[in-house]
Amino acid sequence: MSTWDDLNSIFYPRSVAVIGASPDFNRLGYHCMSSLIMGRFPGKIYPIHPSLSEIMGFKAYPSIKAAPGEIDLAIIAVRSSLVPTLLIECAEKGVKGVVLITAGFKEIEDKAGAELQEEVTTIANRANIKIIGPNTFGFVNLHANLNASFTPEFSLTPKGGISLVSQSGGFCHLMAPLAMEEHVAMSKIIGIGNRCNIEFADILEYMADDSDTKVIMIYVEGTDNARRLFEVARSVTRGKPIVAFKVGRFSLSDKAAYSHTGSMAGKYEVYTAAFKQAGVVMADSSTELIDVAKALVLCPLPKGNRVAVLSGQAGPGMIMSDICEENSLVLADFSPQTTKRLDQLLAPLAMRANPVDMGPAWYDSQTIREVIELVLTDENIDGVLLYSAYASANRSLLNEITSLLKSDTHGKPIISCFPSPTGVWVEEKQEFVRSGVVFYPTPERAAKVMGSLVKHAYRQAKN
Amino acid sequence: MSTWDDLNSIFYPRSVAVIGASPDFNRLGYHCMSSLIMGRFPGKIYPIHPSLSEIMGFKAYPSIKAAPGEIDLAIIAVRSSLVPTLLIECAEKGVKGVVLITAGFKEIEDKAGAELQEEVTTIANRANIKIIGPNTFGFVNLHANLNASFTPEFSLTPKGGISLVSQSGGFCHLMAPLAMEEHVAMSKIIGIGNRCNIEFADILEYMADDSDTKVIMIYVEGTDNARRLFEVARSVTRGKPIVAFKVGRFSLSDKAAYSHTGSMAGKYEVYTAAFKQAGVVMADSSTELIDVAKALVLCPLPKGNRVAVLSGQAGPGMIMSDICEENSLVLADFSPQTTKRLDQLLAPLAMRANPVDMGPAWYDSQTIREVIELVLTDENIDGVLLYSAYASANRSLLNEITSLLKSDTHGKPIISCFPSPTGVWVEEKQEFVRSGVVFYPTPERAAKVMGSLVKHAYRQAKN
Repeated sequence: MSTWDDLNSIFYPRSVAVIGASPDFNRLGYHCMSSLIMGRFPGKIYPIHPSLSEIMGFKAYPSIKAAPGEIDLAIIAVRSSLVPTLLIECAEKGVKGVVLITAGFKEIEDKAGAELQEEVTTIANRANIKIIGPNTFGFVNLHANLNASFTPEFSLTPKGGISLVSQSGGFCHLMAPLAMEEHVAMSKIIGIGNRCNIEFADILEYMADDSDTKVIMIYVEGTDNARRLFEVARSVTRGKPIVAFKVGRFSLSDKAAYSHTGSMAGKYEVYTAAFKQAGVVMADSSTELIDVAKALVLCPLPKGNRVAVLSGQAGPGMIMSDICEENSLVLADFSPQTTKRLDQLLAPLAMRANPVDMGPAWYDSQTIREVIELVLTDENIDGVLLYSAYASANRSLLNEITSLLKSDTHGKPIISCFPSPTGVWVEEKQEFVRSGVVFYPTPERAAKVMGSLVKHAYRQAKN
Repeated sequence: MSTWDDLNSIFYPRSVAVIGASPDFNRLGYHCMSSLIMGRFPGKIYPIHPSLSEIMGFKAYPSIKAAPGEIDLAIIAVRSSLVPTLLIECAEKGVKGVVLITAGFKEIEDKAGAELQEEVTTIANRANIKIIGPNTFGFVNLHANLNASFTPEFSLTPKGGISLVSQSGGFCHLMAPLAMEEHVAMSKIIGIGNRCNIEFADILEYMADDSDTKVIMIYVEGTDNARRLFEVARSVTRGKPIVAFKVGRFSLSDKAAYSHTGSMAGKYEVYTAAFKQAGVVMADSSTELIDVAKALVLCPLPKGNRVAVLSGQAGPGMIMSDICEENSLVLADFSPQTTKRLDQLLAPLAMRANPVDMGPAWYDSQTIREVIELVLTDENIDGVLLYSAYASANRSLLNEITSLLKSDTHGKPIISCFPSPTGVWVEEKQEFVRSGVVFYPTPERAAKVMGSLVKHAYRQAKN
């Protein structure tokens, strides 16, 4: 079997054993069982426990070998010294893959940790068992209803096309809440941990042919085999976008990355340059990572850097314009036809050049709709940034324009921002999410995403 | 009466008239009435309408002169050509202040707009009526239960110590939702509009002696009398922090600022340098503006730039470390005593130098509590950045440390971030808000705020 098939057995298993399953809240195995249950895993679940015959309503077995039937995936959450023996049992049982949550391997100061990791890796390789981990929170595959982690609430993440491959489980615990908060739909969230025989690059290769993944986010500290990572990234980005966030921009965190992951720390500039060459989109922050990934799932890429800023309120329109210019976007002149029609549509109170202040039309959703349509069809414009804050007089605006803003209908990206007080425009924004409208909480974030789309489109066209 | 007293009559009026009040949803006057009602304004409300005798349950009057009793504040939302006559009536009635929501003055292309504004200003000055506006959304004073704007939902903003003075009503409509979303407690939100006889500087001077305002946020496009603004800012910052966000970093938005506010556009670098000299904290985005203001209300200033990063998960700790270093913060060495005790508290799996990976203690809220206490009392440390993501095994963490994190108990700022999935740590975070714990949704934002506090403290110490 290929690595791809092995990984597929891990991500889409028919049966899962939890070695270290426990009814005790203070054990990780308790939380792993809760995760499988909260995720509503549809396959077989086998808790493994030395003495108990039942855990959380599931029949328990004293060893993995005692469990009936085939086991595709074993989640191991016991102390590190027990792992080699248990892994041998997994090998004997014919387990295909392991999520090794246990810590205490290569990352600890004592060199016994590194030795233990080598022992474990040898056992696994001999039995062709692929290991995600050690020292990982596990992973979640929302499309398989599989939460193979110690955090049950990850199953609440909306299901969709973005996968996250992360060198830090902590980072996953930051991104999943952001995704929930902002209704960003995820596919797989994977903490690769300290890597026995499954590297960053292996998972990226898997993602390339994973039909449930449309866009890949990666969080990178550093890696031993950087060359292979860049090569694989280059090949993957030919078919699917990768957005990367790299820590270690400065010496301190770079040093910390070294001690955390036990891998060669990565010079930020080297990684950034190599990733860009590989067609990877770089993000400067956790927020930008998920913002850009969201747009890449939903938006067509712009054909150029000529952007229109349409704003119901002049100030935030200027904020967007600042970010545009900072990111080498051009607020292009409209065509004569567009200019003429805008002059008719908007009162002389408004700025009608780009950026366009739609303010005087703010009661009038129909006019705003027409302004958007007009600018979208202007051949001088490659993408539209749209902003309008809520005011009680323009309450009907979003309903009026939802269908217009669906991201796949114009061949041009429309990135928007519609700030609203608590309790209003709630259903409208839910409908936005269902319809694939791309919107963000601040004008800065919206405009920054447009900048990233343009840069990415430019690099894609060059390749 | 001084300008301060005049403004105080506007912000804390005993009675308010709405000229242009209307039962028609399509009129701004409808929304102004709704705002007063939703805000639960406790004083007298007089709708002024040419023919109706009652609007939204309030007795209406055909003119402001027909209204009984004194009127402190008139909100005007009628078409611009009517404003001079109505203002003369306000003068005859002895109205103290006006919120002139109407647009169509200096900001329009037609020079009739500028002439009208001059006429209005002359009338107002002769009668000593102070005008906020024209072309403003109005203002909200949460401490007076007064919503003198056309957006009723502004009254849902939590009440507290931060005031916003903005050259853009649209910007206010961005910030109020952000404040609601993140439980940032506000005092006054003011759109100064196109400025007849109340300038930016006048409102800042008012804020200096407004006991309901602890920190002032300003949004600046450009102003005619920049010198006075900088002088006033310098004087105000001796007693109260000002945080500023300036648009027009680039040529396009700078041009837009000119046409929007009808004022001299402001070179970004000139403003930034002058503001910094005046002791104003500069923010780079709308988010940073409110983030820094929130911390300035709640936190003591750090005595230096020596920061500790304590993180339950290594990755986000590195993210914080990157931002620290980028902002000239030093991740200082701990004292020998702290180092020794940390060695005892944390397993050898953890990074125990700064940044500290508290990960191996993550079940153990008591140990995390002790680590925080230990580092807070280390004399080598001026401020603490704290991070821990939710996992179901550390559910009790926030309850354990709330009292420890109260911002006023240690003489050092503690800035934190506790990401959590939807539906968990909800009550705990509400308790955080009540207790004055300073926390943000991402590690980047938390660390950036620490950078701003340190810079501000440094400049304050120099002055």
